[in-house]
Amino acid sequence: MSEEIQVMDSNTEVLLEKGKKDGADTIWDRKAAMKTPCGFGEKGICCRICAMGPCRISPTKDKGAQKGLCGATADTIVARNFARMVAAGTAAHSDHARDIAHVLYMASEDGNYKVKDAGKLMNLAKEWDIKTENRDLYDIAHEVAETALNEFGKPFGTLKFLKRAPYQRQQVWSEQKIEPRAIDREVTSLMHSTHIGCASDPDSIFELSMRTALSDGWGGSMIGTELSDILFGTPTACATQANLGVIEKNMVNILLHGHDPSFSEMMVYASEDPELVKLAKENGADGINLVGMCCTGNEITMRHGVRIAGNFYQQELAIITGAIEAAIVDVQCIFPALADLSDLYHTKFIATSPKAKITGAEYIEFVEEKALETCKGIIKEAVLNFKNRDMENVLIPDNKSHANVGYSVETIIQCLDRVVNSYTDEFNTVKPLADVIWAGVLRGAAGIVGCNNPKVRYDESHITIMKELIKNDVIVVASGCAAQAAAKAGLMTMEAKELCGRGLKEVCERVGIPPVLHMGSCVDISRILDIVSRVAKEKDLDNRDLPVVGAAPEWMSEKAVAIGTYVVASGIDTFLGITPQVTGSEYFVDLLTNRVEENVGAKFYFEENPTECARKILERIEEKREKLGI
Amino acid sequence: MSEEIQVMDSNTEVLLEKGKKDGADTIWDRKAAMKTPCGFGEKGICCRICAMGPCRISPTKDKGAQKGLCGATADTIVARNFARMVAAGTAAHSDHARDIAHVLYMASEDGNYKVKDAGKLMNLAKEWDIKTENRDLYDIAHEVAETALNEFGKPFGTLKFLKRAPYQRQQVWSEQKIEPRAIDREVTSLMHSTHIGCASDPDSIFELSMRTALSDGWGGSMIGTELSDILFGTPTACATQANLGVIEKNMVNILLHGHDPSFSEMMVYASEDPELVKLAKENGADGINLVGMCCTGNEITMRHGVRIAGNFYQQELAIITGAIEAAIVDVQCIFPALADLSDLYHTKFIATSPKAKITGAEYIEFVEEKALETCKGIIKEAVLNFKNRDMENVLIPDNKSHANVGYSVETIIQCLDRVVNSYTDEFNTVKPLADVIWAGVLRGAAGIVGCNNPKVRYDESHITIMKELIKNDVIVVASGCAAQAAAKAGLMTMEAKELCGRGLKEVCERVGIPPVLHMGSCVDISRILDIVSRVAKEKDLDNRDLPVVGAAPEWMSEKAVAIGTYVVASGIDTFLGITPQVTGSEYFVDLLTNRVEENVGAKFYFEENPTECARKILERIEEKREKLGI
Repeated sequence: MSEEIQVMDSNTEVLLEKGKKDGADTIWDRKAAMKTPCGFGEKGICCRICAMGPCRISPTKDKGAQKGLCGATADTIVARNFARMVAAGTAAHSDHARDIAHVLYMASEDGNYKVKDAGKLMNLAKEWDIKTENRDLYDIAHEVAETALNEFGKPFGTLKFLKRAPYQRQQVWSEQKIEPRAIDREVTSLMHSTHIGCASDPDSIFELSMRTALSDGWGGSMIGTELSDILFGTPTACATQANLGVIEKNMVNILLHGHDPSFSEMMVYASEDPELVKLAKENGADGINLVGMCCTGNEITMRHGVRIAGNFYQQELAIITGAIEAAIVDVQCIFPALADLSDLYHTKFIATSPKAKITGAEYIEFVEEKALETCKGIIKEAVLNFKNRDMENVLIPDNKSHANVGYSVETIIQCLDRVVNSYTDEFNTVKPLADVIWAGVLRGAAGIVGCNNPKVRYDESHITIMKELIKNDVIVVASGCAAQAAAKAGLMTMEAKELCGRGLKEVCERVGIPPVLHMGSCVDISRILDIVSRVAKEKDLDNRDLPVVGAAPEWMSEKAVAIGTYVVASGIDTFLGITPQVTGSEYFVDLLTNRVEENVGAKFYFEENPTECARKILERIEEKREKLGI
Repeated sequence: MSEEIQVMDSNTEVLLEKGKKDGADTIWDRKAAMKTPCGFGEKGICCRICAMGPCRISPTKDKGAQKGLCGATADTIVARNFARMVAAGTAAHSDHARDIAHVLYMASEDGNYKVKDAGKLMNLAKEWDIKTENRDLYDIAHEVAETALNEFGKPFGTLKFLKRAPYQRQQVWSEQKIEPRAIDREVTSLMHSTHIGCASDPDSIFELSMRTALSDGWGGSMIGTELSDILFGTPTACATQANLGVIEKNMVNILLHGHDPSFSEMMVYASEDPELVKLAKENGADGINLVGMCCTGNEITMRHGVRIAGNFYQQELAIITGAIEAAIVDVQCIFPALADLSDLYHTKFIATSPKAKITGAEYIEFVEEKALETCKGIIKEAVLNFKNRDMENVLIPDNKSHANVGYSVETIIQCLDRVVNSYTDEFNTVKPLADVIWAGVLRGAAGIVGCNNPKVRYDESHITIMKELIKNDVIVVASGCAAQAAAKAGLMTMEAKELCGRGLKEVCERVGIPPVLHMGSCVDISRILDIVSRVAKEKDLDNRDLPVVGAAPEWMSEKAVAIGTYVVASGIDTFLGITPQVTGSEYFVDLLTNRVEENVGAKFYFEENPTECARKILERIEEKREKLGI
């Protein structure tokens, strides 16, 4: 176990002990109570898709039921269950992106929401053939927003962003007939195809899943990222801190947790309101301390350097500190358990989204039309709650790490410009990155993404793999809870270059970047698709040809299943540190981890041991290099 | 057990015996092999929504895990699982309707697909404010089709068909904030809200489910019905026969099974091709005998009187007759088991939809652009297969019943016109129906719909309830596999009036209808919504006020969950003969069967005993009458 992990774990231990004393029920307790998980569910061979069942397939081939009542085999059941995870994951990312598009549609010169990156708006308008000359900025913004909204439901055609991929990749999608049409249509259509009595062929079900997943990566997620940048600014490199130590003893601590930046951005502005800061001081605090968690944490740290309290697995620990005046959430990855837990403390637990009302939470609906007003009201509640804090029962661990964050593709390219030879090369391209990979200075790149999962020691897989890779001159880009793990472990500092191999260390020094780059939230994996595709296009290659991989060492959500599937379908091998619930079908496992490569040029790897996983990643990267002859 | 059930059962027994001899594996065998179903799944307290689990809640309150790892309680887990069934059911109906809309969009004067009911097209165009004056019929059709397609994905506004409901009902939807936006958006949004860490409040999850379900009933399904009528003709009363006895010993038997009329309609035309009929004769058959099954059977019997081989539970029995040259399927409710079963016989099992590829089936993709050509090719395959039939191993049961089918709302109104007093009343309204209900000649009306489910003796619940209701002067409208059960049981004949109470008998005689009216396939439950709403509007009431109910005595599919939910949300009580997988949450059961009435004026009843179910229906109908003072 690495030193960082031990440090993080000491935080956890201390807080769990406090929690126990306080009467808290945490995921550690619930995991203990759950005992053995259902073997059928773990293997994916339990079917609840109609009411003739539930049916479950005996894992012993010569004993017990080998088919569901309708005749569905283990292969079919596993494939359908997997597909439905893809559908739900795609739905989650995309429905979030839709909200951003609606916000851009209502943006105005004098409203709560404005266009912050006009250049990015103009670029996107041009990409989408939207007239920009002699037009009001907000007219353009609204047409871009409406065009984006139509990507969710247009009756004809395929997604616009598919054209961002290398043409070789577009060719693969066309040949495999997996070019997504409208995003919501793909979700709906996949739910239909997995209905009783529809698709039973696992290969076909997986193809349909890839099409749906691509509508996430190159649809919903990419729209979410692009439009968030236009509205809230494209992230630029900035410094922050990460881990529970960012909670301040003498300040009003507001924990923002969830995913939607149109909410959290407004909270950032509201928290800076002088009246509210004054009110905080009047109530005995030194000020207002906004801290982020999960992807909301990523969104606001990327754009404002707001400090990160932690990732998915720390949401309960933050509250157990006893120092959180309000935990405010919108959508996705929020433990319903936070309601009961908050009741043990003075913490106000506030749900804000009509899409995610939570039993036991206070509900203050976030209405975009009254965004700033609503956010100020919420912050006021938190401020006024400071006096209720039991100062005797506060325990904030000291640990926190410095981190440099904000590495959007644009920012990475700006950094790369530092090493461009201005006599021979152009600025504003990814060529320097391609060059160092081709030169072997970097062996390749890995996107490490995803959640935490109690099936593994938390953050350990993330950190072990990242450290192993940077040591071997593989640059890492990270997003989601994986990025926060890296931030907490100090891997996003300039000093982390000391953990790198010689090549990567030199790149870090010359380009002025940490070896693990924070690229944002889980929808921002679209940034990873973007940069990989730019490198491929730079070399006139397909993504599949590049020495790059994706990994989700500790994934747990359906979003991660959608992500893994679109990453593979985009030609990038994906390493899963948690084996998905598919092992009940050897056929489907073989499809995911072997045969799919024939169709889309990439495949899944299941490897729960992080050291072994890193080894396999490095092996695969070298294999790709060899094929390229570099 | 009623006489009809015994007769139907004797068919089954004989064929199951033959199947056993032939080495067939049927749903009866698979049910026996499945043994006890999983108690967690049955109660809905198993969660596979993320990969931290699977989690399952101990049904014993003081023992074992009471929460999932994230803290989700049984109430949350049950609600989410229920919601996802609604999402999938809505997706199935709606994705089917989308295909119909695409077919209307490609319809042309000289193409495979034409507008058959121009009057209905014009009415719909007017309803949707589409210009009709001085326009080519097909221009109008294409604009109607595009408008319909936009109902699936439009970024703004709510569904157009909501306006068909009584304004009191629209008011309820508006107050409850459950007016559906675009159809696919509702499916996607519900999948999002049920993702890990989103909605945990069961009331909210059910509200979101109602909104999604309404986008099925008043969206996808209604579009499916309307556009199918425009393309293929609005059903009119016609005679047919039902049960396995419609399979003919000396003909090429082609079984059509599935749901999409754009496929089955074309098969009907193709089967009448003189060249193919000639080919059949050259191959030793007397001709081509097209027979239908499940909702495809309903679609083609409603419009062409094509005979019904049976409903959901008979799909295997049809093949076991040994006399089916080809079983041709598109989407939904097709046992994957048919592949292996067909291999035991000469039967060609042909899948045609890219949405539903089936392992072991021959795949001939149905491409709408080459519809007639494809269908002729498929029929030719069947015809050429006649010679491979093992005549020694054919067993076709004699039983078949006469039935009158084709009762679209338009046809029912035409029938009602027969009793209009032309001096005092207007033609072409549902007033006569309202009048006889108000007069007490009919006590009320019931829509009996849904599938078969091995949890109950097949068709028995359907028939028991229908007979009990008509005996008590409650007119029955039926769709789906329930309608086919009625047809087989002879309840769709004029003679069935003898089973009715005095009032209904008189209505049957005077109006010239059977007491159980076949209203079509499962998407055609929109016809039931339509007629109920017309009666309500006739009396300036809400649906909730009328003595009408819905029942799904033997439901099994997710579509049925969506249907039940939109029927309740439309103000019509719904009786489920199979208890849904929700009993693990007393709270959610109480919401469905009690508290939801406060919000939408109707609720669910769970009653597995059909006699008892009929009694409760009658009781509820009288309760409604009393409230109305009639």
